[in-house]
Amino acid sequence: MSIRVAIIGPTSYTGLELIRILLRHPRARISYLASARAELPNIADEFPQLTGRCDMTCRPLDPAAIAAESDVAFVCLPHVAAMEHVPRLLEAGIRVIDLSADYRLTDAELYQRVYGHAHTDRMHLGQAVYGLPELFRLHIEDARLVANPGCYPTSVALACAPLLQRGMVGEGTIIANSASGVSGAGRSPKPNLHFPEVNEAYSPYNVGIHRHQPEMEQTLSRIRGREASVLFVPHLLPVTRGILSTVYLEPADDQISEEELFSAFEDAYGDEPFIRLRKRLPDIRDVRDTNFCDLAVRLVKDRIVVFAAIDNLVKGASGQAVQNMNLVYGIDETAGLLF
Amino acid sequence: MSIRVAIIGPTSYTGLELIRILLRHPRARISYLASARAELPNIADEFPQLTGRCDMTCRPLDPAAIAAESDVAFVCLPHVAAMEHVPRLLEAGIRVIDLSADYRLTDAELYQRVYGHAHTDRMHLGQAVYGLPELFRLHIEDARLVANPGCYPTSVALACAPLLQRGMVGEGTIIANSASGVSGAGRSPKPNLHFPEVNEAYSPYNVGIHRHQPEMEQTLSRIRGREASVLFVPHLLPVTRGILSTVYLEPADDQISEEELFSAFEDAYGDEPFIRLRKRLPDIRDVRDTNFCDLAVRLVKDRIVVFAAIDNLVKGASGQAVQNMNLVYGIDETAGLLF
Amino acid sequence: MSIRVAIIGPTSYTGLELIRILLRHPRARISYLASARAELPNIADEFPQLTGRCDMTCRPLDPAAIAAESDVAFVCLPHVAAMEHVPRLLEAGIRVIDLSADYRLTDAELYQRVYGHAHTDRMHLGQAVYGLPELFRLHIEDARLVANPGCYPTSVALACAPLLQRGMVGEGTIIANSASGVSGAGRSPKPNLHFPEVNEAYSPYNVGIHRHQPEMEQTLSRIRGREASVLFVPHLLPVTRGILSTVYLEPADDQISEEELFSAFEDAYGDEPFIRLRKRLPDIRDVRDTNFCDLAVRLVKDRIVVFAAIDNLVKGASGQAVQNMNLVYGIDETAGLLF
Amino acid sequence: MSIRVAIIGPTSYTGLELIRILLRHPRARISYLASARAELPNIADEFPQLTGRCDMTCRPLDPAAIAAESDVAFVCLPHVAAMEHVPRLLEAGIRVIDLSADYRLTDAELYQRVYGHAHTDRMHLGQAVYGLPELFRLHIEDARLVANPGCYPTSVALACAPLLQRGMVGEGTIIANSASGVSGAGRSPKPNLHFPEVNEAYSPYNVGIHRHQPEMEQTLSRIRGREASVLFVPHLLPVTRGILSTVYLEPADDQISEEELFSAFEDAYGDEPFIRLRKRLPDIRDVRDTNFCDLAVRLVKDRIVVFAAIDNLVKGASGQAVQNMNLVYGIDETAGLLF
Repeated sequence: MSIRVAIIGPTSYTGLELIRILLRHPRARISYLASARAELPNIADEFPQLTGRCDMTCRPLDPAAIAAESDVAFVCLPHVAAMEHVPRLLEAGIRVIDLSADYRLTDAELYQRVYGHAHTDRMHLGQAVYGLPELFRLHIEDARLVANPGCYPTSVALACAPLLQRGMVGEGTIIANSASGVSGAGRSPKPNLHFPEVNEAYSPYNVGIHRHQPEMEQTLSRIRGREASVLFVPHLLPVTRGILSTVYLEPADDQISEEELFSAFEDAYGDEPFIRLRKRLPDIRDVRDTNFCDLAVRLVKDRIVVFAAIDNLVKGASGQAVQNMNLVYGIDETAGLLF
Repeated sequence: MSIRVAIIGPTSYTGLELIRILLRHPRARISYLASARAELPNIADEFPQLTGRCDMTCRPLDPAAIAAESDVAFVCLPHVAAMEHVPRLLEAGIRVIDLSADYRLTDAELYQRVYGHAHTDRMHLGQAVYGLPELFRLHIEDARLVANPGCYPTSVALACAPLLQRGMVGEGTIIANSASGVSGAGRSPKPNLHFPEVNEAYSPYNVGIHRHQPEMEQTLSRIRGREASVLFVPHLLPVTRGILSTVYLEPADDQISEEELFSAFEDAYGDEPFIRLRKRLPDIRDVRDTNFCDLAVRLVKDRIVVFAAIDNLVKGASGQAVQNMNLVYGIDETAGLLF
Repeated sequence: MSIRVAIIGPTSYTGLELIRILLRHPRARISYLASARAELPNIADEFPQLTGRCDMTCRPLDPAAIAAESDVAFVCLPHVAAMEHVPRLLEAGIRVIDLSADYRLTDAELYQRVYGHAHTDRMHLGQAVYGLPELFRLHIEDARLVANPGCYPTSVALACAPLLQRGMVGEGTIIANSASGVSGAGRSPKPNLHFPEVNEAYSPYNVGIHRHQPEMEQTLSRIRGREASVLFVPHLLPVTRGILSTVYLEPADDQISEEELFSAFEDAYGDEPFIRLRKRLPDIRDVRDTNFCDLAVRLVKDRIVVFAAIDNLVKGASGQAVQNMNLVYGIDETAGLLF
Repeated sequence: MSIRVAIIGPTSYTGLELIRILLRHPRARISYLASARAELPNIADEFPQLTGRCDMTCRPLDPAAIAAESDVAFVCLPHVAAMEHVPRLLEAGIRVIDLSADYRLTDAELYQRVYGHAHTDRMHLGQAVYGLPELFRLHIEDARLVANPGCYPTSVALACAPLLQRGMVGEGTIIANSASGVSGAGRSPKPNLHFPEVNEAYSPYNVGIHRHQPEMEQTLSRIRGREASVLFVPHLLPVTRGILSTVYLEPADDQISEEELFSAFEDAYGDEPFIRLRKRLPDIRDVRDTNFCDLAVRLVKDRIVVFAAIDNLVKGASGQAVQNMNLVYGIDETAGLLF
């Protein structure tokens, strides 16, 4: 029996990526594409690359109808819209993997400060599990509501966790200098994402005010067991996909060697199917269209530098969401994800 | 004394390009930036690359005020909007070089069919001069209203004119297979021009219905002295700037040699400052940021193939507009344009 | 039992693409990576994206050793080198699918004129089957040596075949105006493929002398049953992957309608799993990383215009090679190719 | 009287950029293009964009011949080759502006460690002036030998200098996280700079071992008056031109405000013609083809973050070289550089 999967908001880039992954998933099948649009599109008209692979027409965003045909729903709606629909889907009796930001921050007050909107579903917020399998795998199994992590936070958490867990990081601010492809900003055309504006360009944005900074701090603090401060500086890359985070940390012990740092990562991630610890430096090219996170660590001057590369739409979104689904259903964690 | 230049609609890509060119023009200076926006921007806030080079604030689109401070106005408005303002500027006593499509087609009925809007300024339509200097230089001198040609038509007309003038082209349809960078589509964000949609993409569009096809036919017919039929197939290139047209023509005489074809171009363009007739094949890279049109001609199988490369924003728009201004004022045609 | 597959020359882009496809093929497994290099690389050091997916080390190009472990060999060597090794592989008893140009042209004299090198394996040349399944499927089944078609010729042949088969094309020269991504030129760095030379560039090359022109003419003549003349003008696109061919043909009957043209394509390709006949215009974006050929046809002025988009490394090379393998072994033609 | 300028090694990207700039320089003219190649090319065959603008043929690299026709030579040779020719040019009686790394590091032993080659011209090394006008203008005037700074060091030095001069930076390591376009790696094709390898890619390289790190430390130590330690992490961007450096510094005084930081930059650079201190965040797009350095400063968490954007070929190489020439000859520092 296949897992029957609904996608809520499939006309987004994360929706498209979910469809691509689910089409090759041996244990899941897409049962329902739910759109909030007035005019319900055929998905292959939205994404011509799907013609002949997935020609389903979207149906209304009706929780009962969705639940009648589905076991789990991936929610690809913008924040605020997500927490409007998630409770109804849960109440209709299906599981939810939410790709929006609405259930990531555990503190509703912090959510309100960061997203400028009161949290309207505190009940489920308390039950949501943060779906970063490499760090919180046990919590994810059998979860009813998974908050799928942000793309930048995934790369930064995976880059820092082994060192924080082992107490190898000093007290200073952790600097996360990241760069992302444009698909991370979504599919809506905007002046700053117009082709001639992004092409041959490169610039920082939202410095110190990006909403992923508190999410990073929440995760790193949880891993470390006490507060971690992150200075996050994102940059926009003139590519479609990929995130590379270059993370600077102060070592707790200034006698540490690069070999010991490498060993810490090996210990932590040696059995992880989607982490590739590398001697060479990562490149977003090497993780494109994959669920891998490529990592490398260097000790330069008196700083630890960790590099983490992911595909923002796969390990940074839809691939990780399917990895979470696999965990929730107790099937092979890599099902549908090694291609 | 400098020529005092107003730019109407300077927040467009053609507006920006005009500003860049005029900043290095030895005989012209920008006197007025006129915007139809409710909130009048500083041009350097719109285009941060202009900071320290041109920090003028836009002023209202008031013909009298513009005329009080300007000798000539470059109109960078969309079609229909242009023909609303052009008569007022002319009546206020200044010359106009219109970069829109509104005065390019001499036949008002054809304009209506092609642009879906009745022509509202037939009086000036009859007086407008089509500003393609290499073909119609004498008509441009001292013109009061210049219709600056479209980007694609400039490349195709320059590619075909020498052969048509000399009767070297047979009766069949001329095929113009062109490709353009994205800036040709303007500065307004649209779904199909969103970075992730254009990047790593390439496709034809508006096949057989592009508005530049009748403009090409009008020019080629005028040059030939009888009707010329053009099949125009434009493609969108994932670059910011540049047009390359690959034009296929049947020779009138099937004994023609490649050398004779080359000589025809040499005769026609030998003294032209902005035409570079090449033995090697043109590349949009080589004309980027210049007012040059690079041309090459080949005889393959039984067809003449002509290649024409221009920068769509320079020779295809703003550079040609300044070339026209130079001609109108009787100054060195290359002033401000060799850089 | 899986088909055991050797790849000869796996450090090429077509080799990488074969590995990617074979990793998800349900009925094949890679048995041998054979390199002619003195130092035999691990394939994941050459292509870091393969780490954790395929970490095989290349072995010597020894036909007996290859045949001992393999049923079929994909040959990804340059022309001339290919026809040196193909006979040895065939003699060692395995089947060969050759991705080079060495067995595509059936006429050895023509081969010599086009490739500047005498053909040294005329015996097998006579036995080779041209592997374009949509046109020559029956010949491919059970073939011992398949000549995998060139990338450009695949797109042009698929664009023209239905019309030629039905006698719908007039006698004139067929114009194939094509554009390809840079991966089509291979993995060896060259001055004209250096990033800053190709980026933001677009130009024609090898006009009238490209080696794929005779291959196109051979295929189209074979389909039509009498000589077909092709004028082929390739252009280099600043993208990694993708070919779009814009083909201009004269109709045999000038009363033909666009609907009749569309029907001819529907008849010819209605059951083809990898042809997508479209109403909208094709884009290389939509076929990226797929084995699809997207087609559209228009009637403009007095010409038929057919658009064909493929991924040059998939349908234009390695995907088609696997499609051929599937046919040779009588398994589902789409195995491993719908992803 | 014009300054007569020789370019040694004009077939490089920095050579091309010098030609472009000098063509519009009101007070200089190119007198000699000197190449070390056996076959001396016409420069327009090397760079077709120069056709009709500069069609000079290169001549032999003969110091006496060069000096007979030139006042100053720009040396665009690789390191080691540069220090072979610079002494001969100086001895022939002309001034030299060297764009290589050979005269940048004042310590010959450090040079040997960093560049793996003994310094063979210690005499002139001691006389060379480091040509970063905004920081060392007085030393440059009337210099006979100017060592033109590296591209990355220019961006990082300009980002840090005002704060270091005013003692506003703490003792910790300064982190310079930079990204550069591919033209910075030169014009020779290499596997890692092959278009399909760089396109849609982004990765760090030479972490902790880049040769510009000691150059940065030398400059920042000189400005501060005591040692400054820099951790430099460069990344390769899939664009042709542009460097953005994101620099992280610890404030000396943790009560400092962002306004005070901004004021420090205003004080330092208020009169600089090529520094644009911005409120908004810099983008390499905005400095493309200009000699500007765009700067912004932020105070986030407990760190100062400075952003510096330059065009690596202009302010990072040839534009700065011309700026130095202007200073050496006592003419308007911006001559030829505001375009």
